[in-house]
Amino acid sequence: MRFDIITILPELFKSAFSGGIIKKALEKGTIEIHIHNLREFTVDKHQQVDDRPYGGGEGMVFKPEPVFAAVEKVKQSEETAVYLLSPQGKKFDSQFAEELAHHPQLILICGRYEGVDERMIQHLVTGEISIGDYILTGGEPAAVVVVDAVSRFIPQVVGKPESVRHDSFVEGLLSFPQYTRPRDFKGMKVPRVLFSGNHDKIRLWRRKKSLEKTLSVRPDLLKDKKLSPADKKILEEIKKGKDNESG
Amino acid sequence: MRFDIITILPELFKSAFSGGIIKKALEKGTIEIHIHNLREFTVDKHQQVDDRPYGGGEGMVFKPEPVFAAVEKVKQSEETAVYLLSPQGKKFDSQFAEELAHHPQLILICGRYEGVDERMIQHLVTGEISIGDYILTGGEPAAVVVVDAVSRFIPQVVGKPESVRHDSFVEGLLSFPQYTRPRDFKGMKVPRVLFSGNHDKIRLWRRKKSLEKTLSVRPDLLKDKKLSPADKKILEEIKKGKDNESG
Repeated sequence: MRFDIITILPELFKSAFSGGIIKKALEKGTIEIHIHNLREFTVDKHQQVDDRPYGGGEGMVFKPEPVFAAVEKVKQSEETAVYLLSPQGKKFDSQFAEELAHHPQLILICGRYEGVDERMIQHLVTGEISIGDYILTGGEPAAVVVVDAVSRFIPQVVGKPESVRHDSFVEGLLSFPQYTRPRDFKGMKVPRVLFSGNHDKIRLWRRKKSLEKTLSVRPDLLKDKKLSPADKKILEEIKKGKDNESG
Repeated sequence: MRFDIITILPELFKSAFSGGIIKKALEKGTIEIHIHNLREFTVDKHQQVDDRPYGGGEGMVFKPEPVFAAVEKVKQSEETAVYLLSPQGKKFDSQFAEELAHHPQLILICGRYEGVDERMIQHLVTGEISIGDYILTGGEPAAVVVVDAVSRFIPQVVGKPESVRHDSFVEGLLSFPQYTRPRDFKGMKVPRVLFSGNHDKIRLWRRKKSLEKTLSVRPDLLKDKKLSPADKKILEEIKKGKDNESG
């Protein structure tokens, strides 16, 4: 898959993909990432990318011409998805990431927080993506997030493909707690059940902890979820405050 | 404010803050950002930061010792906030960002997606932050997002402080559309109302467009919002499909 990022701050991306799984995917050629400087698509001598908003107001607005020219130059086919990173966009989540991974090319336009000319939203892009309910100084950190999350759904990027599907949001629950050596770290001990060798017991304990954490941190995830009878029973026990764990 | 990021991939941050508003804030000394390589806090000759999970399962889990040692070294006072970036965390949003901006120091620990030893969650960190319902290959892109969003709430980072407070999520609505020159771009025209010079009319049109966009893209934001009688009337009109705009 090919990613193209259009930005006025190309320098921010120099090291963004220089480590870990994304670096390996670039080396293998599983993904390609191209960074484009929006200023190179301006036509005036001042390389002006923004201008004052019509109707008044603070801040500057991205002009339409350079962005239209940049997308026209970069876009390879009708199957290309073109998204503006913006707090006004559709909420980005695992499902959205997986959908985007099916396109041969994804063009990401990094907005600045003052806004962009509405004509690009209406006539140029496939849509707008928001990575969360917070404001960034620009779309650049969000573009790195989208490239990372989408890449994980591209075959051969993550070593074990099954681990992508077993992740918390695909399952709709937060993960259970993990422990590794040492068994006792400054008096903080690993729960005994994990040494029981009883895999059913471990599975049940993990499921309970997973439901418990979801209920405590992200009850919203449980609202729309279809729970199995076994899960419902565990949840009832948690809500009653019963504690029959072995930890 | 001082940010400290603990990571096994310090190279990813080399250019992450090298442009735009964050770069200016670093130059002015309004914020400081320090990157720490977790491997430097290991005690064995292999510099091992992770190990297999107790109780079985795929992937590797961050060991507790190096992370505890790193935080102990870096933490400056009891007012320091220490957060693990993890999909299991509390949802990051503008309000959370503003709260974090009140701490003199914020330590961010970048997890990898397989997980970390639960003892750091229970005994080391203030909490866990999730920047959204998607999985990243590691916490590094999320750390850049958090530093950016929190920095905007630090006095003197953003040029006009009032623009931070007028942002969409502080107001609870998505922004209205913005337009700039040219008035006619390849036949795509700027709505006439914006040239009317009638500021009340422009304000009303923008409010309507803002409510319209929120209703269409993020109806969840309207659910918990207390709307003024004027807003309620506009929303009723939008829902009835009436269109009395001047565009």
